[in-house]
Amino acid sequence: MEGRGKEECMRQIEGGVTAAKGFEAAGVEAAVKYRDRKDMALVYSRVPCRAAGTFTTNVVKAAPVLWDKKLVEESPFVQAVVVNSGIANACTGKQGMDCCKAEAECAGRLLGIPAMAVLVASTGVIGMQLPLDRIQAGIEKLAAAKSDTAEAGLNAAKAIMTTDTVPKQIAVQTTIGGKTVTLGGMCKGSGMIHPNMCTMLGFLTTDVNISRELLGKALREDVVDSFNMISVDGDTSTNDTLLILANGLAENEEITAEGAEYEEFCRALHFVTTWLAKKMAGDGEGATALFETKVVGAASKEDARILAKSVICSSLTKAAIFGHDANWGRILCALGYSGARFDPENVDLYFEGKSGKIHIFSKGVACDYSEEEATGILSDPEVTVLADMHMGDAEATAWGCDLSYDYVKINADYRS
Amino acid sequence: MEGRGKEECMRQIEGGVTAAKGFEAAGVEAAVKYRDRKDMALVYSRVPCRAAGTFTTNVVKAAPVLWDKKLVEESPFVQAVVVNSGIANACTGKQGMDCCKAEAECAGRLLGIPAMAVLVASTGVIGMQLPLDRIQAGIEKLAAAKSDTAEAGLNAAKAIMTTDTVPKQIAVQTTIGGKTVTLGGMCKGSGMIHPNMCTMLGFLTTDVNISRELLGKALREDVVDSFNMISVDGDTSTNDTLLILANGLAENEEITAEGAEYEEFCRALHFVTTWLAKKMAGDGEGATALFETKVVGAASKEDARILAKSVICSSLTKAAIFGHDANWGRILCALGYSGARFDPENVDLYFEGKSGKIHIFSKGVACDYSEEEATGILSDPEVTVLADMHMGDAEATAWGCDLSYDYVKINADYRS
Repeated sequence: MEGRGKEECMRQIEGGVTAAKGFEAAGVEAAVKYRDRKDMALVYSRVPCRAAGTFTTNVVKAAPVLWDKKLVEESPFVQAVVVNSGIANACTGKQGMDCCKAEAECAGRLLGIPAMAVLVASTGVIGMQLPLDRIQAGIEKLAAAKSDTAEAGLNAAKAIMTTDTVPKQIAVQTTIGGKTVTLGGMCKGSGMIHPNMCTMLGFLTTDVNISRELLGKALREDVVDSFNMISVDGDTSTNDTLLILANGLAENEEITAEGAEYEEFCRALHFVTTWLAKKMAGDGEGATALFETKVVGAASKEDARILAKSVICSSLTKAAIFGHDANWGRILCALGYSGARFDPENVDLYFEGKSGKIHIFSKGVACDYSEEEATGILSDPEVTVLADMHMGDAEATAWGCDLSYDYVKINADYRS
Repeated sequence: MEGRGKEECMRQIEGGVTAAKGFEAAGVEAAVKYRDRKDMALVYSRVPCRAAGTFTTNVVKAAPVLWDKKLVEESPFVQAVVVNSGIANACTGKQGMDCCKAEAECAGRLLGIPAMAVLVASTGVIGMQLPLDRIQAGIEKLAAAKSDTAEAGLNAAKAIMTTDTVPKQIAVQTTIGGKTVTLGGMCKGSGMIHPNMCTMLGFLTTDVNISRELLGKALREDVVDSFNMISVDGDTSTNDTLLILANGLAENEEITAEGAEYEEFCRALHFVTTWLAKKMAGDGEGATALFETKVVGAASKEDARILAKSVICSSLTKAAIFGHDANWGRILCALGYSGARFDPENVDLYFEGKSGKIHIFSKGVACDYSEEEATGILSDPEVTVLADMHMGDAEATAWGCDLSYDYVKINADYRS
């Protein structure tokens, strides 16, 4: 972990959503659509939580997104999240909304909390109705299995996966107001990933004591540079949901104003969200490499973001990364059509990987680099393009993945 | 050809850029980068032409784009276009611009016309310098081979291909002011296709007599609904160029104002550009099907365009079309993130192909359609999605293609 001085107090620890005090989780097999794998997850806090969320900007919003938006805005507290994979409960009309309510009522009854304290989330195929009987049977299993162990958190991270190849979870600890505060999270990808206001599904739990207003502000401002800077395929899902639950059990004095303690929480939050976002990008459907683009010297922060995202979204560039082909012209092309203004004659491009860094483009023409060396760097599991625009001092980083045969294979017949 | 009444006078004829009076063409092997195939083309008019062009909006503009923009704006007339495939002459700095000038001077000398009457165009790999000696040798061959035969036009259409699988050319005739007017054209794709103001490379020739101002207006207004409505991979090229040359040899009275004769010319132009644009989309890199999306009932023309393009650009939808999978949720998702406003509960979706038409989504939920029938339609070589937004009466159509393994294969190592 980077940093020094005060920042040294933040450290990564084992675990995920069960790392913070008072949080339990479970992941079980409910046969919602998949067979012989975990497909329902529960995140539960022993005490009421403040919650915040960011949701898809897609006009077509899945039923659970509508349910959660309402709860996060109106409910005095939340205490649980029920998640299923396999079916997205999107484009399901009134029946889909009724199903969210039934899920929340079922979980509320079994957990002894109000239905209005139960958030729900779904991911998978669009357009199919959830099998409510199997969902309710799954919730019974979840309520019985919930536990605060690291294993329970991992089970939940596994249960929310769709085409992901690995579960994604992380936890960090830091000190706020003299108290140890823990923040953990899990998320899932890995197709229809082009978050706009948040990611596919992400769940964060923390025992920090913070006002609802500042919790929401921290989350909203964070996603702009974390989850909103990744893309697997340019498709902004109908289900994108990022939720954070804060139960206050760390017993720090409540954070009610911006300042050092709020900043420290934001720093821990950003570490967790960026880590999860990168994992999601690197585990994009069919991906063989994490593809990072760092833009520096941009005229504005907004330009830097637009430029970086344009490169990681370019199908041609992604295919070239898959082929370990130093086809930098496609990168310059993607910067060029991004919408941000710059002088192509005054851009420097570099490729960077574990095996080195090379200068490939300068003053409007190619540098005299070694193709062999470039291919070596582009064969690394994490490839970075560094673009210096020489227009100002703003910078941004975006993360995506390469475009492989397997992306097509996975998506040509995802429903079967 | 559709239409009735006055429109019946327009008919498709054999040929391409040599169909109109006074135009000659050639396609030869110049070994610019490819071996053993035609890779340089010439379009030439025996008399001076008025010209108009639309060019890439990419900030990074290839040298030939800069050359042509200047000529189209400043030169009193043009008379020839020299094209090469294999190398794009983009990101090539001053040397690239010098090369354009040398090309035009060489062609001007051999054709007996001013260098400022010679347009140039290049397509292929970005970042490599053109081999000027081979280009000049190619121009000599072109000048010697030029002819007004249909075969010469076809040779030119073949020479401008890169990853295209078929040459694309068309010609139509109509009657304007009592005279037979001919309009022909050719174009090439098939990657980095997401034109914004024009397509990769398109060349139109006509013997119509029209003012320079109206020729430019007709072209600019046409591309909005033709070439700008196609996408293969979302990458707007550095080289996009669409040129039209009008030499007036049809001897119709000069069209100098909008009216019936201008409209008739626009109609012929739109038939040719739309035909070429669809051919380009259907021959997209790795494509197995032309994928058309027609949006009707949109609130505005701009919304209709945005919605239609969003669907044909969606990687997930394109992969589903490749898999003949009726995964309509992805279509609704792509409409949803397009940026246009609509009510998802009030959209009707249909799949349409040569083998039939089915209603798949209505009133917020899936219709009761046959998956087998849907798979049959999605196995057609031309698949249409029809989306009725029920918001107004604007409509637009966009064309793309499916996303296949071959797209990845072609682009993972295009340079080798």
